Amino acid sequence: MRALYLSGGQVEVRDLPVPARPPGEALIRVRLAGICDTDLHLKAGYMDFEGIPGHEFVGEVVESEQPELVGRRVVGEINAACGTCDFCRRGLGRHCASRTVLGILGRAGTHAEYLVLPNENLHLVPDTLSDEEAVFTEPLAAACEILEQVHIEPTARVAVVGDGKLGLLIARVLALTGCDLYVIGRHARKLGLLARQGMATEQVAPGEESRLPSRWADVVVECSGSPSGFETARRLLKPRGTLVLKSTYRESPPVYLAGLVVDEITVVGSRCGPFEPALRLLEHRLVRVTDLVEDVIALREGKRAYERAAQRGVLKVLLDPGR
Amino acid sequence: MRALYLSGGQVEVRDLPVPARPPGEALIRVRLAGICDTDLHLKAGYMDFEGIPGHEFVGEVVESEQPELVGRRVVGEINAACGTCDFCRRGLGRHCASRTVLGILGRAGTHAEYLVLPNENLHLVPDTLSDEEAVFTEPLAAACEILEQVHIEPTARVAVVGDGKLGLLIARVLALTGCDLYVIGRHARKLGLLARQGMATEQVAPGEESRLPSRWADVVVECSGSPSGFETARRLLKPRGTLVLKSTYRESPPVYLAGLVVDEITVVGSRCGPFEPALRLLEHRLVRVTDLVEDVIALREGKRAYERAAQRGVLKVLLDPGR
Repeated sequence: MRALYLSGGQVEVRDLPVPARPPGEALIRVRLAGICDTDLHLKAGYMDFEGIPGHEFVGEVVESEQPELVGRRVVGEINAACGTCDFCRRGLGRHCASRTVLGILGRAGTHAEYLVLPNENLHLVPDTLSDEEAVFTEPLAAACEILEQVHIEPTARVAVVGDGKLGLLIARVLALTGCDLYVIGRHARKLGLLARQGMATEQVAPGEESRLPSRWADVVVECSGSPSGFETARRLLKPRGTLVLKSTYRESPPVYLAGLVVDEITVVGSRCGPFEPALRLLEHRLVRVTDLVEDVIALREGKRAYERAAQRGVLKVLLDPGR
Repeated sequence: MRALYLSGGQVEVRDLPVPARPPGEALIRVRLAGICDTDLHLKAGYMDFEGIPGHEFVGEVVESEQPELVGRRVVGEINAACGTCDFCRRGLGRHCASRTVLGILGRAGTHAEYLVLPNENLHLVPDTLSDEEAVFTEPLAAACEILEQVHIEPTARVAVVGDGKLGLLIARVLALTGCDLYVIGRHARKLGLLARQGMATEQVAPGEESRLPSRWADVVVECSGSPSGFETARRLLKPRGTLVLKSTYRESPPVYLAGLVVDEITVVGSRCGPFEPALRLLEHRLVRVTDLVEDVIALREGKRAYERAAQRGVLKVLLDPGR
């Protein structure tokens, strides 16, 4: 099969064997796959990943021991867990110590014609959703995870730092709470997608963060993808506020921990989220996603697709193995 | 009056005027004052503090517009707030942006014969408590603050990193929850005070942290006072766990923020706490404190008292202005 292969900081198109289907897993033909900033960070060396990258997809089940799945359109949770440890028994397989993670840790990813994933990770896609919508389920679930972890009151002031693909999804999900939302980013075009929905946005160039309001927000979500985003988020946050971390990068920036103590800040690391609510938000048209698609590029042009996704200000680039 | 004065990294005994009592405040004669690690950090340059240090005390009210206070023995909350801002109206005066903080920020401290503090900051000391017990109210309140912020289930595994004066108080307060408690420190003698109560303790030399269990605790309290404590706490913590930060120091250590995201860690900064429960714990003899007194030294020997408090492994040094 055709697949992208990430090694030594390079992505190349390779011809690889169709993956063998282990018991309990499904063989899935990929219909569309997304390129996420995490994929770009993997390329830059994060997690020392080598192999087929990618964790966002919508596909069709080709083979499975569960006949009701075969031929159906699915999306899939990316953590494949042991099913027996403490975390798995508490329904937190995404923290299972022996988990593999699709296209991130010990498991080939979605930037290929085929992938395998445990049957229990799969969710049927409602017929009313297009592939271009369904492929956003995984990042939308990551946005929903914030609401699983933090109670955002409708009266809260909430800031989102970062107008990347995930930032825009997060802003749209958080806006559903009725909170007083304020989105800070670098790109007029991306912020414009939110401003068109009536959201308060602010374009801030690097180094200009000091003109942002200080101690304004009850909750700040840091999803800028940049180590400097932490300081910007701290500036915006009230004492006793909650700082939700979504960015993952290699760097370990210096953090003034005494400031967290003095202001009694709560920092909440937030990763993958639940698929069911994400699919419901899509199905009920509560979160719009198709305007976030920048480009759909053939898998065989994967190298170009990665270059495109890495360009400044670019939205979601999708890979189409069928072209 | 006799007072200690901190300036340019030095503590010296000075003869200073008795502070003028502003309206709404009480003039208090100090009976005993404690030296806290924060005082030692102030001496090392934290907060750029210059003036009379100290925030732990028990004293007797000499003058106040509230006659029921005069002549009574009191302890006092250390944050003097405006009383009208959002935080003050929510009962969170300790986060008031225009607050002064006793012996820390814009307000002369307790290492003196007299101090002034707003009447509403004062709490009467029950007659059954000795001065040596009552002087622990402030740090004990800081330990109680953890339980104000984090729900510790009786079935939780909880680790305390740090066997300093605050660490020992925290361990004793958390033990009251019935949790599975594990205290990590550097000093056999200090840990012995807890082991004698039947607590599980572990003496770990610098660089030996790798032999600690990893991913053991649901909650870890970092009160080591050292930037390296953060990494030790992270090591002990399970994914989805809560890391309570109590240490304040000048340094901004590098923090691998992506690790907080991947493991969905919650970090909770925790500072000053409520005095009422601390006084109840003392009054009901639920937390023992007198075995934490290392030495009581005359205020006029304040320089020596600070040197003593800074020695490795030393417990609470108290200053007595009456000697």
